[in-house]
Amino acid sequence: MADTFVVIGGDAAGMSAASKAKREDPDLDVIVFEKGEWVSYGACGMPYYVKGDIDELEDLVAITPDEFREERDIDLRTHSEVVNIDREARTVTVENEEGTYEQKYDDLLVATGARAIRPPIDGMDLDGVFTFHSMDSARAVRDAVAGVADDEREGYGSEVGEYLDGEKPESVAIVGGGYIGLEMAEAFDARGLDVSVFEMLPHVLAPFGESIAEEVEDHLREQGVSLHLDTMVERIAGEGGEDGEDGRVAAIETGDERHPVDSVLVATGVAPNAELAVEAGIETGETGAIATDELGRTSAEEVFAAGDCAEAHNVVTDAPDYVPLALTANRAGRAIGSTVAGDPTEVGGIVGTAVVKVFDLEVARTGVIDSDEAQQAGFDPVSQVITAGSRAHYYPGGTPITIEMVADRETGRLLGAAMVGEEGVAKRIDTIATALHAEMTVEEVQNLDLAYAPPFSPVWDPVLTAAKVLSGKLE
Amino acid sequence: MADTFVVIGGDAAGMSAASKAKREDPDLDVIVFEKGEWVSYGACGMPYYVKGDIDELEDLVAITPDEFREERDIDLRTHSEVVNIDREARTVTVENEEGTYEQKYDDLLVATGARAIRPPIDGMDLDGVFTFHSMDSARAVRDAVAGVADDEREGYGSEVGEYLDGEKPESVAIVGGGYIGLEMAEAFDARGLDVSVFEMLPHVLAPFGESIAEEVEDHLREQGVSLHLDTMVERIAGEGGEDGEDGRVAAIETGDERHPVDSVLVATGVAPNAELAVEAGIETGETGAIATDELGRTSAEEVFAAGDCAEAHNVVTDAPDYVPLALTANRAGRAIGSTVAGDPTEVGGIVGTAVVKVFDLEVARTGVIDSDEAQQAGFDPVSQVITAGSRAHYYPGGTPITIEMVADRETGRLLGAAMVGEEGVAKRIDTIATALHAEMTVEEVQNLDLAYAPPFSPVWDPVLTAAKVLSGKLE
Repeated sequence: MADTFVVIGGDAAGMSAASKAKREDPDLDVIVFEKGEWVSYGACGMPYYVKGDIDELEDLVAITPDEFREERDIDLRTHSEVVNIDREARTVTVENEEGTYEQKYDDLLVATGARAIRPPIDGMDLDGVFTFHSMDSARAVRDAVAGVADDEREGYGSEVGEYLDGEKPESVAIVGGGYIGLEMAEAFDARGLDVSVFEMLPHVLAPFGESIAEEVEDHLREQGVSLHLDTMVERIAGEGGEDGEDGRVAAIETGDERHPVDSVLVATGVAPNAELAVEAGIETGETGAIATDELGRTSAEEVFAAGDCAEAHNVVTDAPDYVPLALTANRAGRAIGSTVAGDPTEVGGIVGTAVVKVFDLEVARTGVIDSDEAQQAGFDPVSQVITAGSRAHYYPGGTPITIEMVADRETGRLLGAAMVGEEGVAKRIDTIATALHAEMTVEEVQNLDLAYAPPFSPVWDPVLTAAKVLSGKLE
Repeated sequence: MADTFVVIGGDAAGMSAASKAKREDPDLDVIVFEKGEWVSYGACGMPYYVKGDIDELEDLVAITPDEFREERDIDLRTHSEVVNIDREARTVTVENEEGTYEQKYDDLLVATGARAIRPPIDGMDLDGVFTFHSMDSARAVRDAVAGVADDEREGYGSEVGEYLDGEKPESVAIVGGGYIGLEMAEAFDARGLDVSVFEMLPHVLAPFGESIAEEVEDHLREQGVSLHLDTMVERIAGEGGEDGEDGRVAAIETGDERHPVDSVLVATGVAPNAELAVEAGIETGETGAIATDELGRTSAEEVFAAGDCAEAHNVVTDAPDYVPLALTANRAGRAIGSTVAGDPTEVGGIVGTAVVKVFDLEVARTGVIDSDEAQQAGFDPVSQVITAGSRAHYYPGGTPITIEMVADRETGRLLGAAMVGEEGVAKRIDTIATALHAEMTVEEVQNLDLAYAPPFSPVWDPVLTAAKVLSGKLE
């Protein structure tokens, strides 16, 4: 009898693993359980759907359920939630509309993803307060800000239904100045809402470092976004009830101040959906995500984990890390698919590369930038901030690029960098990411033979200039 | 008495070396001899000056002669040609308007650059036939195509004066489909000329490989450029004389065909100005350029060479190479400046990275792409061409990127790549260049943690996709 590969979760990691395993070993039975309706969707595109850059939510789907079933011969079962893993029996318990059943597995992949964190703030359940981490929530928010009439709206999951009570909002407070918060600021602004952002840390985009964050903050203010940094949201107040404790959201309260708003997006990060694995006795790491080895295996034999529920290995710190991003999920899923099909394949390390568009800015980072984080990893970090042009000084249309680059004092090893600018940033960070994978020193980076032509770069690319100046500081 | 560092040639390599040496060792006497008037200019910007994107020729100058003299304390002597190097006496013979004199040196840098090749074609001296490798020629060509009246033109060097006899041209034939030829095609087209390109090889942009070149050719034709590939120009015919052997250019003759034109740009590459060094007994390499070691030293003690007259070390082939580009010149000059000032600094290797804008396309390359070249360097090359989107499939405005990637069959080592597309190409090549410096395998490239966000890339960046598919082909 053929082996059975069971996958829990039908998004990036899960469907990549399922597809790769089936392609490499067509005799394998591959079953994917997805508790919702959507599979293999580009969650990163949801802000642009809300903004209106993308017409249909379905456009975000790379491969449809029917294509997985018919073209890839994968037994994909949507609306099917795995509620238990029995490692002794090698079975999972599946719940669907009709009831509950057991499914045998030979290999199991936990790809349960992450969820939006719901911080312990009063008022999270008011109408008009929402999080944003599912396709249903994306549709609900878009319908709301686009002013779609109540009776023209399609049904959503219960998590977002209450957002729709009431009129099209005129203002939105975004709690959290991370990727999603800032991408949604752009989307809401495009929809004509007054946007304010509340961030409890001194700066937005904490993983990018202070210098880069400050440029992003200036840009946000230029776009008309109200920024409240270093500001703890103490309560979300409603317009109903004796003390404003119910009904539609009316204001954000921060200490003594009250900021009236008629909708709130809580975007304070994500947490790994590790509970199912933990209940089965599978170990998590210090980050709270499921611990994995170089093949993506968990502490339980024949159980793999990948994607936003799992840790990855950070090449710079040489330690486990939790960076729930799409490429890591896709790559780990694909590697695990190969391993399950009989070709052991490493999931590969990460360096923490990320890029985000914030209105007209490209903002990117890779490696270790934070001084404390670098010290905890055993480095003595030295940092340098430079600004250089995106094109030759005489070529029209160039804009400044600011780079913060960090290296270890003793060894000169490159540790990380962040950068910001209106053009030429998003993919320039990849040069530095590649250098991090190769464990280059800044002196080696300074000597890279990078591309030059006047429309695209100064002779000394900004990356080279950053490395040159930082290298001088290390001498 | 202070040591004297003499530099021959006042462009990228020479002025970088002079500046760095003086900054590191202010006691050093630094003398630069430049035979012309212009120093430290961005020759790569000249096509955009002709096109009209850049207003003044002076805009191309990064640092003026006066700044070098007054702010950097460099003894810069323009209109001063070095005509002899006496290694025994450690002197150079300098010719200027007033006569000839000897100058002692302790360290000498030969940075004499390159010149446009003049192929042995009849008719090279006709009016309206020109090459393009000096600031004077750039001004002359711009004045001609912009229709500046004869009496408003400033004087140029004798090399280009005759181009100006006659009216504003209506058509131009470009002989040579390399970087300069194609950049100038764009410039002439913008000026309203009918443009045709004659290339004796089967494709334009030979160093980029056939697959990429074909896309460039399609684009050129779409822009209205007439392409004559695999076509040898046998003669440039004039409108005067008995057999059309003088006067203004009238036609390009290729075998049986005659193509009427009223101007011709001959852009068939550049050759190193190595003669001065050769006459002093300094060795050249197989490429014809001056041979140098890892510190930029020539075969003669205390004589350095850098820039477009010198070889560089190719990291991929582990052999000397001649790739006369701006960054290599700047970097080698700077390193030699440090070395002369007492801090021995390697000039660094190259991987042959280059990028060129061709109308709306970005076209880039790095490493070894040509199969014969790879075999000569001892590799067994395997090549793969892929096409992927520049953005997430659902994000508007994305365009295709085509990549050819080459690896060694036995070791899987990445050897090179070329790519073309309307956006996201120019700096994406740097990822591959960096991987070449690190001597990565394609499997390692496939596992790089590159940046992803929908506006900038698919989840699997095109570079990763190319590496993934090529890696599969190697198995």
